[in-house]
Amino acid sequence: MKVKLFEKKGRKLGQPPGTLQFTGTPKVEKVVMTVIDYDDQKFQEKRIDSIKESFPFKNKPTVTWINIDGLHQVDIIDQIGQHFQIHPLVLEDILSVDQRPKCEDLGNYMQIVLKMITFKENEIQNEQVTLIIGDRYLISFQEKPGDVFEVIRERIRTHKGRIRQMGPDYLAYSLVDAIVDNYFLVIENLGENIEILEDEVMTNPDNRTMQKLHTIKRNLLFLRKSIWPLRELISTLYNGESKLVKKQTMPYFRDLYDHTIRVVEMIETMRDMNAGMFDMYLSSISNKMNEVMKVLTIIATIFIPLTFIAGIYGMNFEYMPELKWRIGYFIVWGMMAVVAIVMVIFFKKRKWL
Amino acid sequence: MKVKLFEKKGRKLGQPPGTLQFTGTPKVEKVVMTVIDYDDQKFQEKRIDSIKESFPFKNKPTVTWINIDGLHQVDIIDQIGQHFQIHPLVLEDILSVDQRPKCEDLGNYMQIVLKMITFKENEIQNEQVTLIIGDRYLISFQEKPGDVFEVIRERIRTHKGRIRQMGPDYLAYSLVDAIVDNYFLVIENLGENIEILEDEVMTNPDNRTMQKLHTIKRNLLFLRKSIWPLRELISTLYNGESKLVKKQTMPYFRDLYDHTIRVVEMIETMRDMNAGMFDMYLSSISNKMNEVMKVLTIIATIFIPLTFIAGIYGMNFEYMPELKWRIGYFIVWGMMAVVAIVMVIFFKKRKWL
Amino acid sequence: MKVKLFEKKGRKLGQPPGTLQFTGTPKVEKVVMTVIDYDDQKFQEKRIDSIKESFPFKNKPTVTWINIDGLHQVDIIDQIGQHFQIHPLVLEDILSVDQRPKCEDLGNYMQIVLKMITFKENEIQNEQVTLIIGDRYLISFQEKPGDVFEVIRERIRTHKGRIRQMGPDYLAYSLVDAIVDNYFLVIENLGENIEILEDEVMTNPDNRTMQKLHTIKRNLLFLRKSIWPLRELISTLYNGESKLVKKQTMPYFRDLYDHTIRVVEMIETMRDMNAGMFDMYLSSISNKMNEVMKVLTIIATIFIPLTFIAGIYGMNFEYMPELKWRIGYFIVWGMMAVVAIVMVIFFKKRKWL
Amino acid sequence: MKVKLFEKKGRKLGQPPGTLQFTGTPKVEKVVMTVIDYDDQKFQEKRIDSIKESFPFKNKPTVTWINIDGLHQVDIIDQIGQHFQIHPLVLEDILSVDQRPKCEDLGNYMQIVLKMITFKENEIQNEQVTLIIGDRYLISFQEKPGDVFEVIRERIRTHKGRIRQMGPDYLAYSLVDAIVDNYFLVIENLGENIEILEDEVMTNPDNRTMQKLHTIKRNLLFLRKSIWPLRELISTLYNGESKLVKKQTMPYFRDLYDHTIRVVEMIETMRDMNAGMFDMYLSSISNKMNEVMKVLTIIATIFIPLTFIAGIYGMNFEYMPELKWRIGYFIVWGMMAVVAIVMVIFFKKRKWL
Amino acid sequence: MKVKLFEKKGRKLGQPPGTLQFTGTPKVEKVVMTVIDYDDQKFQEKRIDSIKESFPFKNKPTVTWINIDGLHQVDIIDQIGQHFQIHPLVLEDILSVDQRPKCEDLGNYMQIVLKMITFKENEIQNEQVTLIIGDRYLISFQEKPGDVFEVIRERIRTHKGRIRQMGPDYLAYSLVDAIVDNYFLVIENLGENIEILEDEVMTNPDNRTMQKLHTIKRNLLFLRKSIWPLRELISTLYNGESKLVKKQTMPYFRDLYDHTIRVVEMIETMRDMNAGMFDMYLSSISNKMNEVMKVLTIIATIFIPLTFIAGIYGMNFEYMPELKWRIGYFIVWGMMAVVAIVMVIFFKKRKWL
Repeated sequence: MKVKLFEKKGRKLGQPPGTLQFTGTPKVEKVVMTVIDYDDQKFQEKRIDSIKESFPFKNKPTVTWINIDGLHQVDIIDQIGQHFQIHPLVLEDILSVDQRPKCEDLGNYMQIVLKMITFKENEIQNEQVTLIIGDRYLISFQEKPGDVFEVIRERIRTHKGRIRQMGPDYLAYSLVDAIVDNYFLVIENLGENIEILEDEVMTNPDNRTMQKLHTIKRNLLFLRKSIWPLRELISTLYNGESKLVKKQTMPYFRDLYDHTIRVVEMIETMRDMNAGMFDMYLSSISNKMNEVMKVLTIIATIFIPLTFIAGIYGMNFEYMPELKWRIGYFIVWGMMAVVAIVMVIFFKKRKWL
Repeated sequence: MKVKLFEKKGRKLGQPPGTLQFTGTPKVEKVVMTVIDYDDQKFQEKRIDSIKESFPFKNKPTVTWINIDGLHQVDIIDQIGQHFQIHPLVLEDILSVDQRPKCEDLGNYMQIVLKMITFKENEIQNEQVTLIIGDRYLISFQEKPGDVFEVIRERIRTHKGRIRQMGPDYLAYSLVDAIVDNYFLVIENLGENIEILEDEVMTNPDNRTMQKLHTIKRNLLFLRKSIWPLRELISTLYNGESKLVKKQTMPYFRDLYDHTIRVVEMIETMRDMNAGMFDMYLSSISNKMNEVMKVLTIIATIFIPLTFIAGIYGMNFEYMPELKWRIGYFIVWGMMAVVAIVMVIFFKKRKWL
Repeated sequence: MKVKLFEKKGRKLGQPPGTLQFTGTPKVEKVVMTVIDYDDQKFQEKRIDSIKESFPFKNKPTVTWINIDGLHQVDIIDQIGQHFQIHPLVLEDILSVDQRPKCEDLGNYMQIVLKMITFKENEIQNEQVTLIIGDRYLISFQEKPGDVFEVIRERIRTHKGRIRQMGPDYLAYSLVDAIVDNYFLVIENLGENIEILEDEVMTNPDNRTMQKLHTIKRNLLFLRKSIWPLRELISTLYNGESKLVKKQTMPYFRDLYDHTIRVVEMIETMRDMNAGMFDMYLSSISNKMNEVMKVLTIIATIFIPLTFIAGIYGMNFEYMPELKWRIGYFIVWGMMAVVAIVMVIFFKKRKWL
Repeated sequence: MKVKLFEKKGRKLGQPPGTLQFTGTPKVEKVVMTVIDYDDQKFQEKRIDSIKESFPFKNKPTVTWINIDGLHQVDIIDQIGQHFQIHPLVLEDILSVDQRPKCEDLGNYMQIVLKMITFKENEIQNEQVTLIIGDRYLISFQEKPGDVFEVIRERIRTHKGRIRQMGPDYLAYSLVDAIVDNYFLVIENLGENIEILEDEVMTNPDNRTMQKLHTIKRNLLFLRKSIWPLRELISTLYNGESKLVKKQTMPYFRDLYDHTIRVVEMIETMRDMNAGMFDMYLSSISNKMNEVMKVLTIIATIFIPLTFIAGIYGMNFEYMPELKWRIGYFIVWGMMAVVAIVMVIFFKKRKWL
Repeated sequence: MKVKLFEKKGRKLGQPPGTLQFTGTPKVEKVVMTVIDYDDQKFQEKRIDSIKESFPFKNKPTVTWINIDGLHQVDIIDQIGQHFQIHPLVLEDILSVDQRPKCEDLGNYMQIVLKMITFKENEIQNEQVTLIIGDRYLISFQEKPGDVFEVIRERIRTHKGRIRQMGPDYLAYSLVDAIVDNYFLVIENLGENIEILEDEVMTNPDNRTMQKLHTIKRNLLFLRKSIWPLRELISTLYNGESKLVKKQTMPYFRDLYDHTIRVVEMIETMRDMNAGMFDMYLSSISNKMNEVMKVLTIIATIFIPLTFIAGIYGMNFEYMPELKWRIGYFIVWGMMAVVAIVMVIFFKKRKWL
């Protein structure tokens, strides 16, 4: 399956802005909601059936992480929007799964939209993740259950690293970091494919090579589009512009920024490699044609004059003195040998043989 | 019909600036004018025959939207200019239908010029729309009746969304948003064409493929040219530089800006795809030529030596011992079989067969 | 005649800066000088023989436009320089006709250099125009009589538009605007040529097509080089940096800036088109070669095996049983027909026929 | 061995940030640690077995340079981190050997990461070097023993140059300068390879030429990626932003910046050359094919008509008057000579011969 | 001889910074030193044998220009450095003849490094020139005697222009201007070569054309590299940042800046032209191959069927009725004529003939 390069806008044509409408295809039957509530001392994790169960956590001094898997039940989003006082345009963005990665500071809370990209069965999969980061809470929205955040959950459960001592900004960092980590995996896989293809192009290109090059090109266009905006996104986070990002969290975002730059540079390098491989492919086709032409030319150039000689003595003139000579036939063979040898020497000299 | 890439300046050569002159071809016989006047409580919509009928609305505290379909009756534009005190250069711009999209703040009012682009019968149609946004009024100028604003009118009529509570700035946002929405439709259609063409290039390119690629290139050049300036245009609107854009409307323009960026990025992606497809097309032509050459070479290389052998024994020398042999003819057949088999093995080894 | 892409510096090698020396070739025998003096009430136009006749106008409160056609009489430039106190480097620039368009504010006066470009007999003509704009005067220098300013003169004579009420800054605007107007004409002509060539490339390219593409490329390089600097030039004029440009004139320069941007964008679009057409031309050559190869391959592949069969039965072996068969000759014809039909079917299947 | 273009992130997937983990492959069995302590008067150099031996130097007023060769003993890094109070993320960076070159000021100390690149046996080798620069100390981390710093050590030992009078900032400059010096060596070697390849492409390209061009492309992509970030890195050092860089050291960094710019420009020039050589290679393949085609065409075009003539008089019609003529055979020879000469003249005229 | 694109760093590997070492090859046996001392009234010019002879001039109020031709006598540079108190890094730069053009303000004096480029015997020659500009003196360093400054010397001797009234900043301007003047000459020569080559590519490209294109590409890369940094260099001079450049000299540097921009733009235009010519060359090769193929195809396609017909009647079947017909031979000739004519018509229709 090809990656989707040209998507729809989101909200249906003509709807007023702020209309809540899920624009993707539901990838899960029932929305799955979990709450993880923690501070340095306490930890609580539970699955909830109604979003209202999560609201009491809001007033506690602990960090509350609400995770929503599945976006097709618009009323849940609506209730969250009302309870946490989130701007309708932000809610609309959560439900429009073809957003461009972005980070917006809306005063009391912050919105981060980005793409969770994984590489499964040689294909690129992607899912939109939205994070709403408040003073003491973080809400994450995903299209379907199953994510790359399990390591973060485990770290919270087992009190590993400093995550339990930090606020929702550090949690947000951890989640984005987990997503960026997966970009590296995707890049690594794609890089391996490129190296394999590189050998194929050099040694034995065939008709499908072009298609493989094109598929990689598509994938790179998709990755570039999904990851490029992250540079700006993350740089706004460590620049101290938002009061929601604490000073001690900033070095982590700065570190994350370095990683993003590396991913982006590797994508650009891959694009360069891909273009170079296409050039090699073209030159390899030309070389092959040259080979074909040489074979044809060698055979034709040797045998056409010989056939002509044979043709001469196939003529039926009554008076052709050579035909009477007893040695004529052998002289002709000799002539032919000379012609053939001259041709072979000519080709040897031109290094065609 | 091809899209127009190189247009005229506008005003006729040598006319002083500010001369009112319609530069397009009239696309409608009679200019159609409508007034929609509304606030949160009241709503009034009427078609007017003379532009003067709209002037009384100006002094009311309600929002007045005057829509003009058809630009060839210059006196109407002139009357509007005098009544609303609009700068002659702005009026000239309204009548010059090859403007570049732009947004200019002129103190008491604002001028927005942009292109309404639709995709009909596999062709790109475009029409210039100018918006004059004042404190309590908005005037929109179009080249002909029929537009993408019907959803907005319906929203005003039915008091849907928050449009009736907001001012002319929000109305302007709604109109620009409706136009940008249509860009997504155009992109989607073009994207489908590109995906279809992509398959064609890969599996079965013919002479018309090149022309299709070129038509898409033209269309993309046109879209790029028409949409690219919108980024700057809209960013000036949400940056709080104009007093005509209220603070609560800015997030909507910000949202619109995101959409525009996405359209622009998709156009760039399409250009990348198109260039890649051209490369594929070239390599596919080369591959085809390779195929042709191989067939020729295989046939020629097998039969030319055989014909030579036949030629030898077609010679009329009196003394050719082999001709007397009873088994000679069959030996020749055997030799030919050997030559042919050697050739076939040679081609098999080179993977030409 | 080709446009000149690589010009000389100006001043002869080794001359001290500020040396007055005409670097072009004189295009007129005698320098033609005219003075137009006007304000809202009065108007006077006269041809003068000595530049000194124009000096009395300087002290009047009216606007004085001195126009000099022909630059080879260096003493005239020298006299003007002394009378109007113009920096020697500026005078040198006036006489060096290969300047890059630029605008410099020198306090009491301003220097604008630009290229007047016209399209005559399918060729691009250009002439350097320098404007010196003072408080109450404007001096224009051209290489030869005949210009695009006649419409401006007519407007001054007939008091059309607001030119008679405005100062030399507005006159400068009018002159630059007239020049930019002509760029649109040139672009239009070139655009038509490109569209015609586009059809030619698509339907029937021949050897001269490449040369035509190259000529257009040259012309575009020339236009780009001549017009590109205008963007910066004009933007310095409406940014309010110079006290010589009055506030009410600025919107006109702003409008002019928009026009220049459009010209520049169209040139870029043309460059894109030109590059695309070259690609099409290449692919069209390849397609043609493919056609040629196919014809050769079809003919050769059908007849070479047939000729081989004929060759077989042209052999002179004494014992060749088939030759005795009464029906032998017709069987051979049949075999040949079968071979030919098989080949044709093969080509049909490959869509070569 | 190819250079590595796509690397892993560093820290293993899912580990909390600041986890110390060596991500490379150990290139040395035992970590080698040395301390060099000096000021203008004193100098001491010793090899230490435990990192703790180096800690007493910290409090002395002399400059202390601790060098660590080998990163796989994480506890050493950990001890350094605790003693010198280095941020966990910085320690993590030291152990992640696929970092992007960067320079970060962390208040009391500074972190510089860069690549030590050498050219051995026609292959590019690289090793990551991290410098931690404090007020009176500098710690350098390398992947394995053996480096380009021996000249610096010698200079310290022999009190050559001003290094003994300066602080750790000048030592850092000297180390970075030694690394950049080696870039020049690499560039020089690569430049020689390019010049040799240039001749090969021009005079005698074969199938391996393309692969050589591609290897150079890879190497250039690698160098670019490794060296490009240095420009920014060094410019932050001489801009006076960090209090750790003394004023008298800045001109040296400024000088270093010039060198870096030159390296970067040469890499870009090489990329240009490489692209140009690929174009030459393609055109050279085409030229070769032209040659092959010409030979085929000349031979075929001369002999096919001759063979046809011979074929005519090989026909067995009972009534063919020419066959009876005594002179017939010689007339045919004459005809053939004429045809052949006409063809040769034709080819001469077209300059194919 | 090819221009040198990849140079060494300068100072030998491992030497401490500020080490004085000449890195080029001595181009002159003995260093030639001259002093020119002048003000508005007085003028003195003399050749000196020891650099010390020039030191007394330093304290005079006149302008002193010391010119050093030849850099291999390091002690001279050292003495100058000590007397004029020049930073060791600057002295090192003077001796490293592969510097990048730059301008640095070091407080009491200024350093300008640039390339003197000339075009001799169709080859680009270059030499590094360093200027040290102090309050009342200017020292110029060149690699060998012979330069483009003779016109400046003559102007000083003959009191031509305003050079005798101005300070060392104006002298520096004059020298840089003389160098830039020569760039125009080089560009002009190269431009002529390009125009000649353009015709060659269009009408009659051969194997050496590609090499010529490549040589021009190399030359342009070299020029670009040598001249591009001048833009920044000169713009720092007229921006009033240095107290060493007097206000009345700035317009001259501004003028010089314009010239530099023009040179840079012409180089870019040449690169565009060169790339375009390479494209033309490729398409011209393809066209030629097309021609060759057509000739082959026409000859083969006409004669192969004819030869086949001849072959048919060369068969030796006992029963071939046509052979007995008296008119048979002539019918065959007729058939052949028909086939040939049909083929010719076919080719005419396809416009191959």
